[in-house]
Amino acid sequence: MMGTSRRCSILFLTLALLFPVVRVNRLLKRKPLDYQMLCVCASDIISCSKVGLTNVTLDLPQHTVVLDLSFNSITELYAAWTPKHLNRLQTMLLNNNGLTFLSSEAFVHVKKLRYLDLSYNGLILLDEFIFEPLEHLEVLWLFKNRISQIDRYAFSTMGALQKLYMSHNQISRFPLEVLKERSKEDTFKLLDVSSNKIKVLPVQELQTMRAWIKNGVYFHNNPLTCSCELYNLVASWHLRELNSAFDFAGNHTCGVSGKQHEKILNLNCSEVKILIKKGYLEQTLVLDCDTKHKYMEKTWVLPGNIPVSSANDSAIVDRGNYLHIGPLKVENSGVYTCYATNDSLSDTLHFTVVVHNSSMRGGLEDLKTAYTTLGACVVSVVLILAYLYIPPWCCACCSGGKDDPRDSFHSSTASLPLEHVERGAEAGGFAFGDAAMQKIKDQLEQNGGLNPIGEKDEEWPRVSRKR
Amino acid sequence: MMGTSRRCSILFLTLALLFPVVRVNRLLKRKPLDYQMLCVCASDIISCSKVGLTNVTLDLPQHTVVLDLSFNSITELYAAWTPKHLNRLQTMLLNNNGLTFLSSEAFVHVKKLRYLDLSYNGLILLDEFIFEPLEHLEVLWLFKNRISQIDRYAFSTMGALQKLYMSHNQISRFPLEVLKERSKEDTFKLLDVSSNKIKVLPVQELQTMRAWIKNGVYFHNNPLTCSCELYNLVASWHLRELNSAFDFAGNHTCGVSGKQHEKILNLNCSEVKILIKKGYLEQTLVLDCDTKHKYMEKTWVLPGNIPVSSANDSAIVDRGNYLHIGPLKVENSGVYTCYATNDSLSDTLHFTVVVHNSSMRGGLEDLKTAYTTLGACVVSVVLILAYLYIPPWCCACCSGGKDDPRDSFHSSTASLPLEHVERGAEAGGFAFGDAAMQKIKDQLEQNGGLNPIGEKDEEWPRVSRKR
Repeated sequence: MMGTSRRCSILFLTLALLFPVVRVNRLLKRKPLDYQMLCVCASDIISCSKVGLTNVTLDLPQHTVVLDLSFNSITELYAAWTPKHLNRLQTMLLNNNGLTFLSSEAFVHVKKLRYLDLSYNGLILLDEFIFEPLEHLEVLWLFKNRISQIDRYAFSTMGALQKLYMSHNQISRFPLEVLKERSKEDTFKLLDVSSNKIKVLPVQELQTMRAWIKNGVYFHNNPLTCSCELYNLVASWHLRELNSAFDFAGNHTCGVSGKQHEKILNLNCSEVKILIKKGYLEQTLVLDCDTKHKYMEKTWVLPGNIPVSSANDSAIVDRGNYLHIGPLKVENSGVYTCYATNDSLSDTLHFTVVVHNSSMRGGLEDLKTAYTTLGACVVSVVLILAYLYIPPWCCACCSGGKDDPRDSFHSSTASLPLEHVERGAEAGGFAFGDAAMQKIKDQLEQNGGLNPIGEKDEEWPRVSRKR
Repeated sequence: MMGTSRRCSILFLTLALLFPVVRVNRLLKRKPLDYQMLCVCASDIISCSKVGLTNVTLDLPQHTVVLDLSFNSITELYAAWTPKHLNRLQTMLLNNNGLTFLSSEAFVHVKKLRYLDLSYNGLILLDEFIFEPLEHLEVLWLFKNRISQIDRYAFSTMGALQKLYMSHNQISRFPLEVLKERSKEDTFKLLDVSSNKIKVLPVQELQTMRAWIKNGVYFHNNPLTCSCELYNLVASWHLRELNSAFDFAGNHTCGVSGKQHEKILNLNCSEVKILIKKGYLEQTLVLDCDTKHKYMEKTWVLPGNIPVSSANDSAIVDRGNYLHIGPLKVENSGVYTCYATNDSLSDTLHFTVVVHNSSMRGGLEDLKTAYTTLGACVVSVVLILAYLYIPPWCCACCSGGKDDPRDSFHSSTASLPLEHVERGAEAGGFAFGDAAMQKIKDQLEQNGGLNPIGEKDEEWPRVSRKR
């Protein structure tokens, strides 16, 4: 009995191992169907739509440019679906077929495909190698499948990809790699992951991308988790009228702990302002005409509808895209406009520039001066307390009877705060800073703790700076 | 009774007149269907394929770029199918709908369409105004309908049309106007009228067109009438490997009096030779690199695989497309090649140039010399007959007793042929011509009719030349 069982097991194992080979051979040896009997041939189009095709091999003519296999029952696709290379094939329609399996070699014979429709099928997994041969593919329809797993490299070789439709699937991870890969960004137009199961968006990465990329990133109808970060993203995209946000304003919803009914734009977050640029006197501001579409002709107009000219030194256009304004004056405040156009589209960006009536240095100095004053106060209090409570003999011990004020300056209690004061004042070189420092020094002098005058006094802060 | 009948008639007439208004109003007032209930919305795609739509009004979003209405039951299409303009709509699929009527306003709200699929419907007539609004349309699928009538202006406003598929219809007239209209030629790529009912092709007009147009004119599977003109067209297109002929070599058939079984390429007509250019010494030949595709980079190579260079004076490239060879020498004979390439395609044209070892003038002279010889023979015979049969007194009468041979030379019988002989010999400067003339003159001398030597003899042919 044991012997028979072992033989059965070996036989089963052998069969199991051989099965894929047999299956592939069967597919390879399958007699190709005569397309002329089933399909309509209209010069370079072969239309075999809704003719009851199953997992067959089709011997198609080399001149086929469009192949319509939609509304059939092709559930699995292997390399052997065509026995020869179809180098002119550009469009392949496989929608509505119940496809559940795509071999990694399914498209090895049709490497010149530019348009592939795989919508309305039953695909679950997008493997690393499935689309590898499709270097020329521009548009991929994958909506209405059951895709839940996408390999991070599934689209990495598709350098020409422009539009990727993956809505109405089970995707839970936002495929950021599609946008990140530089080669795709060059030709990229649209990534649709709407109506999926994505809970978290890579908000920061998305926000740093150019407007023409964001314009085509559709993510509405996903169970996103509410946050003000998400609100900022959707609100700023909406204000910029980016298609992905503007066209589906009502469909951007989020929820907390599974409840999905709050419109993101209705969240109670601080107001989002875009294209407002603040600057200080003498600074240079750079305005970036970050348009919704690529390759647009751009024209800049200054406040008061004045075109940018070479006569105007304070506003210079850099590579069309950027406007450098500076050194800023208060009168540079106003609305700057970038008009962008191409053959069929236009985009207008209004930048509100506000110039503060103070320099950037002044702004920082204000803060430094405040710190300096606070520091000086603390030092004063400490010294007063020391003067009041520490007995005079202690001072005499430390100084060893010498009355050199420089030595007392090295006391641990005084050195750090004073250093801080000196550094702050020196770095700032600011009237208020100097005055504050003088005041602090005067206070210290009054307390008889040190003599701030003398050449060597100026050196010590430099030494401490080297620490 | 008469009064009632008249009232009925008036009522009927009124109703009949009102009916179209009522019908249009009904269509206009029809409540638009909520596309979100029926269709799948994948960002800019609205897919309403096979959802049982009839002649409905759809209130679609402005951002729709692709609209799929295929496999429904829309039998008539009026302007009211959409209540608003869809200015972003580029692709509209209406195939497999049983469409039998397209209003001339069906597409007034989708003027930016670039791709329209009307295949697998029941259209019979293509009216002048149906496609009028579609100035941006690039691809029109009309195959598998029942089209038998096409207005000559049906496609006249579609300046951007690139591909027009009309195979598998009932068309009996070749729509030459599609190719002729200049605006279409600029962007034209394909006209498919295969599998129709065309009996006669405009062969001469087609032959004069550029190769890149002919490359995309598909007319196989039509009941064409056999002729050697048709054979020349198909054979020359086939030799040039133009897609329209080369890809369907076996499907170009013709028949006589309704019988349709002869392959055009099997017809018993004289052999067709292409790209063979013959020239004569001192002539200039122009080779035209008439490629199968437009906008190709062209490189010319001389016999012996020598690239055309500025150092070579006898071969000059003109605007990339043309090669001027000349003044021709015998050694210019050989195979000249034009290599044409663009991003994805290539085309190579080999021109066989044969230079005859004679000038074009010489060639004509051969013919003149032959006539001269024949003329001289006739003169000789006439003079011999005159010598034999005309009595001597007659000559004495005419000459008035003078024995000047020059006077006899002016006899009406001799002047014309001799003039002809002299002109031919002088113009030709050809050894055989001179010898022949000398022989004729000797013959005349032997007969005593004239003296060919002397200054004045040389002058008369010049005088006669001025006539």
